[in-house]
Amino acid sequence: MKAAPVKGTSDYLPKETALRDYLQRTILDVYKENGFEHIITPAIEDAENLSKSEGGDNLNLIFNILKRGEKLEKVIEDGVTLENQSELSDLGLRYDLTLPLSRYFANNRNELVLPMKCIQIDRVYRAEKPQKGRLREFLQCDIDILGDESGDAEVELILTTAKALFAIGFKNFTVRINDRRLLHAVLNSIGFAPEDMETVCISFDKMDKIGIEGVCEELERKGFSEEVIAKFEDFLLQESITLDSVEDMLQDKGPAESLARIMEDVKELGEGKIPVEFDISLVRGQGYYTGTVFEIESGDFGSSVAGGGRYDKLIGKFLGKDVPAVGFSIGFERIFSILSEQGADIPDAKKRIAVLYGEDDFKSAVQFAEKLRSERNVASVYRRPKKTGKFIDRLEESGFAGFIIIDEKTEVQYFDQ
Amino acid sequence: MKAAPVKGTSDYLPKETALRDYLQRTILDVYKENGFEHIITPAIEDAENLSKSEGGDNLNLIFNILKRGEKLEKVIEDGVTLENQSELSDLGLRYDLTLPLSRYFANNRNELVLPMKCIQIDRVYRAEKPQKGRLREFLQCDIDILGDESGDAEVELILTTAKALFAIGFKNFTVRINDRRLLHAVLNSIGFAPEDMETVCISFDKMDKIGIEGVCEELERKGFSEEVIAKFEDFLLQESITLDSVEDMLQDKGPAESLARIMEDVKELGEGKIPVEFDISLVRGQGYYTGTVFEIESGDFGSSVAGGGRYDKLIGKFLGKDVPAVGFSIGFERIFSILSEQGADIPDAKKRIAVLYGEDDFKSAVQFAEKLRSERNVASVYRRPKKTGKFIDRLEESGFAGFIIIDEKTEVQYFDQ
Repeated sequence: MKAAPVKGTSDYLPKETALRDYLQRTILDVYKENGFEHIITPAIEDAENLSKSEGGDNLNLIFNILKRGEKLEKVIEDGVTLENQSELSDLGLRYDLTLPLSRYFANNRNELVLPMKCIQIDRVYRAEKPQKGRLREFLQCDIDILGDESGDAEVELILTTAKALFAIGFKNFTVRINDRRLLHAVLNSIGFAPEDMETVCISFDKMDKIGIEGVCEELERKGFSEEVIAKFEDFLLQESITLDSVEDMLQDKGPAESLARIMEDVKELGEGKIPVEFDISLVRGQGYYTGTVFEIESGDFGSSVAGGGRYDKLIGKFLGKDVPAVGFSIGFERIFSILSEQGADIPDAKKRIAVLYGEDDFKSAVQFAEKLRSERNVASVYRRPKKTGKFIDRLEESGFAGFIIIDEKTEVQYFDQ
Repeated sequence: MKAAPVKGTSDYLPKETALRDYLQRTILDVYKENGFEHIITPAIEDAENLSKSEGGDNLNLIFNILKRGEKLEKVIEDGVTLENQSELSDLGLRYDLTLPLSRYFANNRNELVLPMKCIQIDRVYRAEKPQKGRLREFLQCDIDILGDESGDAEVELILTTAKALFAIGFKNFTVRINDRRLLHAVLNSIGFAPEDMETVCISFDKMDKIGIEGVCEELERKGFSEEVIAKFEDFLLQESITLDSVEDMLQDKGPAESLARIMEDVKELGEGKIPVEFDISLVRGQGYYTGTVFEIESGDFGSSVAGGGRYDKLIGKFLGKDVPAVGFSIGFERIFSILSEQGADIPDAKKRIAVLYGEDDFKSAVQFAEKLRSERNVASVYRRPKKTGKFIDRLEESGFAGFIIIDEKTEVQYFDQ
């Protein structure tokens, strides 16, 4: 049998798990304190819900679950072909927490108070090509506000996410923000047709990686007119693209004004500790976003550690009636890997003490350990091996800070760091 | 799109999730305090690992994950039949936490201190026929000790699990204990052949549900001799089957003596609060158990709330070398459903206060909420709706205990329960 975990998934050692627990608990507690309520949705979703969910590229990364028993037999007996292969599967693993939340809201509408402010901290699955840093099973920490169409919701999500990041020791970061409506209006005013928005945005989204030139080349290959591409290039080559300069280009000032207010509120309520920048090039992949989109970029690590946006049309797909919604998700794995590499310490961890016992001293050891536990220690009992010193070295390496030997035949000794 | 969660899975409302969080956290903290270390394994396992794992009936309940991309295309192009259908799947969802732990140990052997005392609290998946009370996605809380062949490990697991149950408010329970070796020796001495142990045990395991008569009838249908069945029936009809009476039947007294010591130690170290009973009819389904098996039965609810046993041969399948191992698992869902029905309160929950704000008072509300949070409250801000009273009623129902209205045009009011 194979000892390695499935590619793209991880076994976490005790030390790593202790850090994950600490981070997860701290983030959850900050979210809760700020008035968000924790909810749980299943990791398994209906296959059709997943495939029809406008998840952008993620739809190609779904782990599908095989039908079982008679249902599977029937599909096989009828003949499986490349065309009807979707018949093989009735369920799948979720690729994010937003789709399950939308379904959840529709399912539990009558039990919930609107606006609903909720937390999900849970695993999601994506069948990415296995490569370093790309996990196929990973944790997301989401907060969402459903039922509030105003920018207040965005402000609260950004403040609360920033607080969670502060609480786990992240300091130097910037919020980048944009609005899909603004982006579309700009692209429109440059000359791209409304029906081409998605494909233009997919190329634009790559600017981080391939630069302005790369984006323009890709748009050429997609067959857009030289004139429009040149205009787009001029736009991107401006010294700085501010919210004001973009607002000047547009007739409908609504989205720009609402974005300006969100940015102001975050700056003021964040007491200057949460820098916010308008970034017209922020696209974000998910097809379901309808308004604001935002990310938090770590200055120290030059990468995005949280992302989110408004998805006012997704819940309607389940409920038959639109409900305004906006969410913000911390990319837990990125944060875990940064802090893990730094060898981050866990504040207030209890002291770990090992109680080693001789042949006939198991019961005394358990009773002694119990006393240590009542004094706010973690205590483990171990049968004393022949090479006690070597064993103690091993325990010390693994994080024990105190050692007690109870052996009738010798005396009780106490080592302490 | 379908609003209901997949059959056998659950959406948990905020109140339910708060109870689950409290239970999970309390159990985890007790386990940790007692010297067990938390580890995490993936929910996805290699399909072959799962199918070869001696999981008993659970092997029929595995959710298989479909291959993807070219690999899937190749299988389909080669032709899918009922015989080769296992080719469709390369991965599966785990049905318990013991198999992943055995793989984990083999994979991380060099990083771990032996004996290893570890915790897993995580989801598992079984494709049970959907019916009331049977979940397909559910949580297990396991502790395991690897590398200790002595009964001390069983004693520690039982004491620690009992402490976790005490901590979440369970009081009236009994530990039932047996040993597979003892059971097999008894069945053997009655006349069943060693190669028939598994099928006899599968029938015997049903005694709770179908009674002695039912078990004997099933054994008859399976073709066992009338004489042996009659002897078995006589054995079961005894007034009481004690460990002593069983010991008298056997030549090898080892398992009975070790079981007696475990029972004594638990009674003594549990200070009389943890009753332990020998029960020869305790079989437990998993094929991988090799020695002691045990359950905790709630006296108040007449059902098993935790179960475990020794599996000294499972790790060897991954490592090529046997490592003694024993585990105990709390059936979280059973406990959650009992406490949920009782309407259990969460001790030390923070007070929840809602801050309602008028049109221009969002920022003041956020600042006021911040002050409340610094005083150990949970504070949520809400835009004040037209029907403020009705909204407050709704919030109160959902658990808010204090209300503040900040509205420039009116004055600040404070309601408090």
